[in-house]
Amino acid sequence: MANPILIEVTRGPLVESWHRGAIAISSPSGALALQLGDVERPVYPRSAIKALQALPLIESGAADKFGFGPADIALACGSHAGTEQHTALAAAMLQRVGVAPDALGCGAHLPLGASAAAALVANGHAPNQLHNNCSGKHAGMLATAVHLGEPTAGYWEPTHPVQQRIHRVLVEMSGVPLGPDVQGIDGCSVPNWAMPLSVLARMFARLVTGDGIEAGRRQALVRILRACWEHPELVAGKGRADTVVMRAFPGQVIMKTGAEGVYCGAFPEFRLGFALKIDDGAKRAAAGMAMALVERFYPAARGLMPYGPIKTWRGVEVGAIRSAAAFEDALEKLKV
Amino acid sequence: MANPILIEVTRGPLVESWHRGAIAISSPSGALALQLGDVERPVYPRSAIKALQALPLIESGAADKFGFGPADIALACGSHAGTEQHTALAAAMLQRVGVAPDALGCGAHLPLGASAAAALVANGHAPNQLHNNCSGKHAGMLATAVHLGEPTAGYWEPTHPVQQRIHRVLVEMSGVPLGPDVQGIDGCSVPNWAMPLSVLARMFARLVTGDGIEAGRRQALVRILRACWEHPELVAGKGRADTVVMRAFPGQVIMKTGAEGVYCGAFPEFRLGFALKIDDGAKRAAAGMAMALVERFYPAARGLMPYGPIKTWRGVEVGAIRSAAAFEDALEKLKV
Repeated sequence: MANPILIEVTRGPLVESWHRGAIAISSPSGALALQLGDVERPVYPRSAIKALQALPLIESGAADKFGFGPADIALACGSHAGTEQHTALAAAMLQRVGVAPDALGCGAHLPLGASAAAALVANGHAPNQLHNNCSGKHAGMLATAVHLGEPTAGYWEPTHPVQQRIHRVLVEMSGVPLGPDVQGIDGCSVPNWAMPLSVLARMFARLVTGDGIEAGRRQALVRILRACWEHPELVAGKGRADTVVMRAFPGQVIMKTGAEGVYCGAFPEFRLGFALKIDDGAKRAAAGMAMALVERFYPAARGLMPYGPIKTWRGVEVGAIRSAAAFEDALEKLKV
Repeated sequence: MANPILIEVTRGPLVESWHRGAIAISSPSGALALQLGDVERPVYPRSAIKALQALPLIESGAADKFGFGPADIALACGSHAGTEQHTALAAAMLQRVGVAPDALGCGAHLPLGASAAAALVANGHAPNQLHNNCSGKHAGMLATAVHLGEPTAGYWEPTHPVQQRIHRVLVEMSGVPLGPDVQGIDGCSVPNWAMPLSVLARMFARLVTGDGIEAGRRQALVRILRACWEHPELVAGKGRADTVVMRAFPGQVIMKTGAEGVYCGAFPEFRLGFALKIDDGAKRAAAGMAMALVERFYPAARGLMPYGPIKTWRGVEVGAIRSAAAFEDALEKLKV
């Protein structure tokens, strides 16, 4: 009944810790190319679906209205590092929309990027909402509200038209109902709906192939994907896996991390989408699996992210984060 | 075969993540008052056994030789926050021993304490080895080496007399052999030996009762425990569970966190020791269990650590970290 162990953390001769979870790799039709663990339990995708949460920004005409280019769209799809580049761009988006930064409802946290956080602290500044990794997504939400003449106050509430539009998009793209029984509130205050990993994987396969999606939305998705591949540094940040991999494999890999050990992505050339969730929410395990997956489809990705060694504070390697047997075996059997 | 789910993390109507693990509560004789999951698998105790790693500092006469008082001994048992108070004390210990701070082998990391880390960064300083949460432990190790006329170089190596003495103490206190098959290297470069949670729990029961321990060591243990209860802020830091709880319950609760989801401690009045390990290494789960345990033995501890709520960045409660049914039930059945 327990999900299988997918990632192990060793120290010396022993496995010190391990991470259980589930993963699905799906075709656009829903045929599973790989499945480990319970892929039918609803999982909050969290930030892994920001590219889909950005659809109404394009489809409503708001992006065109405010002259948002690929950079703005990429930031709207990103969990950015909170550098000056990121915050300045989010601020510029809001200025074009004509709302003040304090219209944001995402709340403030220290930049995800360590050097951005250190710079902020070194200058004696507290983080503001622009530093929140979701400020681009929220700027996009505000743009949609203003463009459609809706109130900006409370745009994060599940009952606000901005969130209801996103809900509709997710129901359409996922093909599942997404009722209140699977509705949680994300760290940035907007609703997030849990769905099975099998459904998320299928949705990501459709996202990159356009299978079963009407022409207008297909164009919007192409615009979103191109924006992410053109500006991968805005989707995450320097040295982070999503940025590094998408810069190295534009058009070939789309991937996005989510909180609590979630990863979603797709490999357009293979017409496959993936979704995974670590039971315990560990980022180190989710990131390890996502990189192992990318390396399986594109062996040239090996070494892109120096992932795995456990080191002492003096830099000596004393253990490793590695794929466990169940995941290794499944990857090996996977036809690529 | 999988360990039971002990801690759950909810978001909205769903359990978003969960943590499996094992826990043992033992008498000094090894009778288990509570046991969940596999308590016989060897677990690296990491920093949870610093009080025992400090025994040679007392027993060798080094502490007396260098005039170490309760504060110095508490720091040697601590995973400190790296504040000025902590680093100044570690530096003073080294000065009395007559070695320079760069004799430390623990390596450098940013202070564990968020405000100490921010202050360091704000002043444009990089962390040095004194900021390492283990610098007090290492200062104690250096003190022992110098006192006994041993080389200070490489005092962290498993073959150095300093580590061999600690190994002997742990073998004696645990009653298990601790061979190379269970030897790993800790983040601070010194060896750490894995042992079953049942053994760790029994060891902590003996540590506070003195059962089966000869008089000299008993006195040393009393001196160590008193130091931790007298200076709990040196064992961890402001706002951290070990400090807060030991300040509120001196003589009644000893507790110490370790990396990778370990917690050990004891309740002298109940003549019981405990040891727990979260499979995936999550601190949030280990800390949650430790607090639930303390609250079971001392209901007055409720509310001491505002533990549990999951909040948005705007401070709205949207989920909880809570004990899972298996752990709740076991706690309820526990006779206290």
